[in-house]
Amino acid sequence: MKVQKAAIIGGGVIGGGWAARFLLNGWDVDIFDPDPEAGRKIDDVLANARRALPGLYNRALPNEGRLRFATSMEEAVKNALWIQESVPERLDVKHRVLEILSAEKANNAILASSTSGFKPSQLNEKGANCIVAHPFNPVYLLPLIELVGDPQICADAADILHEIGMYPLRVRKEIDAHIADRFLEAVWREALWLVKDGVATTEEIDEAIRLGFGLRWAQMGLFETYRVAGGEAGMKHFMAQFGPALKWPWTKLMDVPDFDDTLVNLISGQSDTQSGHMSIRELERLRDDNLVGILRALKHRGSAAGAVIAAHEAGLDWPEGDGLPVTGDRTVPQSWTDYNGHMNETHYLEVGSQATDRFMEMVGADTAYIASGKSFFTAENHVRYLAEVHAGDRLRITTQVLAGGGKKMQLFQFIHRGDGELAATMETLLLHVNLETRRTEVPGPVVAEPLAKWVEAHAGLDWPEGAGRVGTR
Amino acid sequence: MKVQKAAIIGGGVIGGGWAARFLLNGWDVDIFDPDPEAGRKIDDVLANARRALPGLYNRALPNEGRLRFATSMEEAVKNALWIQESVPERLDVKHRVLEILSAEKANNAILASSTSGFKPSQLNEKGANCIVAHPFNPVYLLPLIELVGDPQICADAADILHEIGMYPLRVRKEIDAHIADRFLEAVWREALWLVKDGVATTEEIDEAIRLGFGLRWAQMGLFETYRVAGGEAGMKHFMAQFGPALKWPWTKLMDVPDFDDTLVNLISGQSDTQSGHMSIRELERLRDDNLVGILRALKHRGSAAGAVIAAHEAGLDWPEGDGLPVTGDRTVPQSWTDYNGHMNETHYLEVGSQATDRFMEMVGADTAYIASGKSFFTAENHVRYLAEVHAGDRLRITTQVLAGGGKKMQLFQFIHRGDGELAATMETLLLHVNLETRRTEVPGPVVAEPLAKWVEAHAGLDWPEGAGRVGTR
Repeated sequence: MKVQKAAIIGGGVIGGGWAARFLLNGWDVDIFDPDPEAGRKIDDVLANARRALPGLYNRALPNEGRLRFATSMEEAVKNALWIQESVPERLDVKHRVLEILSAEKANNAILASSTSGFKPSQLNEKGANCIVAHPFNPVYLLPLIELVGDPQICADAADILHEIGMYPLRVRKEIDAHIADRFLEAVWREALWLVKDGVATTEEIDEAIRLGFGLRWAQMGLFETYRVAGGEAGMKHFMAQFGPALKWPWTKLMDVPDFDDTLVNLISGQSDTQSGHMSIRELERLRDDNLVGILRALKHRGSAAGAVIAAHEAGLDWPEGDGLPVTGDRTVPQSWTDYNGHMNETHYLEVGSQATDRFMEMVGADTAYIASGKSFFTAENHVRYLAEVHAGDRLRITTQVLAGGGKKMQLFQFIHRGDGELAATMETLLLHVNLETRRTEVPGPVVAEPLAKWVEAHAGLDWPEGAGRVGTR
Repeated sequence: MKVQKAAIIGGGVIGGGWAARFLLNGWDVDIFDPDPEAGRKIDDVLANARRALPGLYNRALPNEGRLRFATSMEEAVKNALWIQESVPERLDVKHRVLEILSAEKANNAILASSTSGFKPSQLNEKGANCIVAHPFNPVYLLPLIELVGDPQICADAADILHEIGMYPLRVRKEIDAHIADRFLEAVWREALWLVKDGVATTEEIDEAIRLGFGLRWAQMGLFETYRVAGGEAGMKHFMAQFGPALKWPWTKLMDVPDFDDTLVNLISGQSDTQSGHMSIRELERLRDDNLVGILRALKHRGSAAGAVIAAHEAGLDWPEGDGLPVTGDRTVPQSWTDYNGHMNETHYLEVGSQATDRFMEMVGADTAYIASGKSFFTAENHVRYLAEVHAGDRLRITTQVLAGGGKKMQLFQFIHRGDGELAATMETLLLHVNLETRRTEVPGPVVAEPLAKWVEAHAGLDWPEGAGRVGTR
């Protein structure tokens, strides 16, 4: 794959998040930010991203691209295919920057703004030619990008965003604050009233969100949730029931509260009480660990953001093996750590099990084969734990075929850490089954023949140390 | 534990959800609902609840209580400690029902309304004495309850809600629509505008929520999310930055759209396009599976709703063993199913690993011991898969000590299905370690002595079939 380059203009939390997305998906990145602190800030975001993003996937991401700090916008933009502007939300500043970027960029390069509020027509009124690509913090984990502007540029942009694991949402008409931030603004205004009126503290409001509808909104949005709530009677019935509430005083949003020092102090004081026992860095890491956990849970059913991760994962390259076949290559998620401060014993078997799945694919026992009603069931596993593995470690799994023929397949998985250390071995005995009868039976030639070739290829290899603990003795 | 009784008045989705919460936590439940379809509706909700709720926990819930349909409110209320009103949202209907319930209930019984809109002062204006206990759908999974009303009654109610795994949030002042529904109403109104104005369809709005801020709100709320976004500069800085937006046209909520047939048809038509390929039942199950997955992910770090689940789980009773010690007793979550339509091989080891954790506690190697810098590491596991296990199956794990002494502990876990079938065995070899040096060492007497007693107690037992596959031979 040819390495592509992105230019990131403005290196705050949002710009840094964009940089991390591109870098960790194999793009080279040039950043321009005149802030002398920009290097440190980007390093912080990158450290968070490297810690969290690879944990979303059961496969390794491409090799990280090369990061460079440019000394001018002109330098950053040179040869860039994607140019992302994330400077402060002031229209005059954006105009100045976008004018330079438009003039310097390559013809086919996409110029996009991270603005949460401005419309493309406002951004382009001084002659720039940019679209809005509005991301959500943390940009390296949340897939949503709101795309607004020229349809052809947005279509090209969408292709690139898919490549780096994001979900481009085309906004049909430009509008202040696009879509999501309109909801956030409404909730923010309502929340300011509730705190000001003493109905709830910031902490109580957060609990009201995250223990209730927040859990629903991570997987279904507003309308699908209500569709389900409406039940068999359907969406019209639901709406008939809640239509009248529009006339009731259920929101104060006919008005906005005075945003004075008293309100600011009230809120920041309550926020300190609520969260002041954790540093921002600790909160970020907790947030990211939870996001990875939630996203991995959604991936299991291919729902919502989990479907985006699954599709991205399916497109990742498998590494070449120069000996035994490579049946796994991945990074260990934070959530796999247990009370002993290392990867829990369960996940060694999980990794070995996924390697078995991969080897099954290699002998033709793939998704289509399983859908046809045949598969392998595991009869025994023997795992030897040889070295500790930690969150963030890269693992590479290779597979030796010990035996295969008739109903049986006996594999030996080597689980290596990125530093080359053998972390574990897993010997596994599988039996071929008919999924209808749930009984064992001999596989047809579509699987038996490829398997026989592997058996033959590995026939000359010595049995590895520790093998021979599964099967009847 | 003495069995307690709840009366559920109104058996729709909300009443059914309350019934399921109480029943699955061991309470008896009497339901009153004059609707001839009530029985079927409650069965549907209960089926969903039985399928999902037990999967939140790594421990079994209490035995289910007894469900009965009462023929009158008077009968339902008799001996009930908790009475929950979930009749339609019409103040006159609520007044009539609450008056009867107030007259019939035991003195110390808590009378609570599920109303999403009315204030206690409105509900009680005809002489009833109820509080608001406002739940969120699905009530059997989402922990949030907004409590509003008399402080002493709310305090008593909070104790009971904790017992059934919920999170009571005390609302400081009564207000139309309490807290969470004010946000939902604001978002709903804004969403109606966006659809009406053709900016986005219902599906696009749902994606804008669930691929972005919905993922944040499942674990942090509004204010903590913004605190993190504000970074080191703090909450005041964040507010200074976004205060001015209050003056901008970022929401249309100074006005509400006409709720006419055109808008209703537009929305219900879009909703059909978006979700019509799945039945409501399928959507409910997908929602529940995702919620269980998200909640289990949050439980791992003890965050947000995950902390509520973890606290509830810690209070669940351990069953007595009448032979080998019981080291596990749980229900299999939906998410443990793999492409073969049964519990994936990984989770057999997970269950065995948790049984090892429980046995470690029993010999004194508990959380405090591990915090003091000593623990056991697993050296080898050998799993035999003997019978298929499915989502929803109850599993009971017992442990035989094969050997223990010096640095070593060798255990044999029997994993039985609820029907008595031996589903798997796991033999495990553990080594006692110093967590500082990460090297093996002999445990002190606080662990060595209890372990020696178990070794002695099991010395007369035969080694089970399949044992002897771990350790040097």
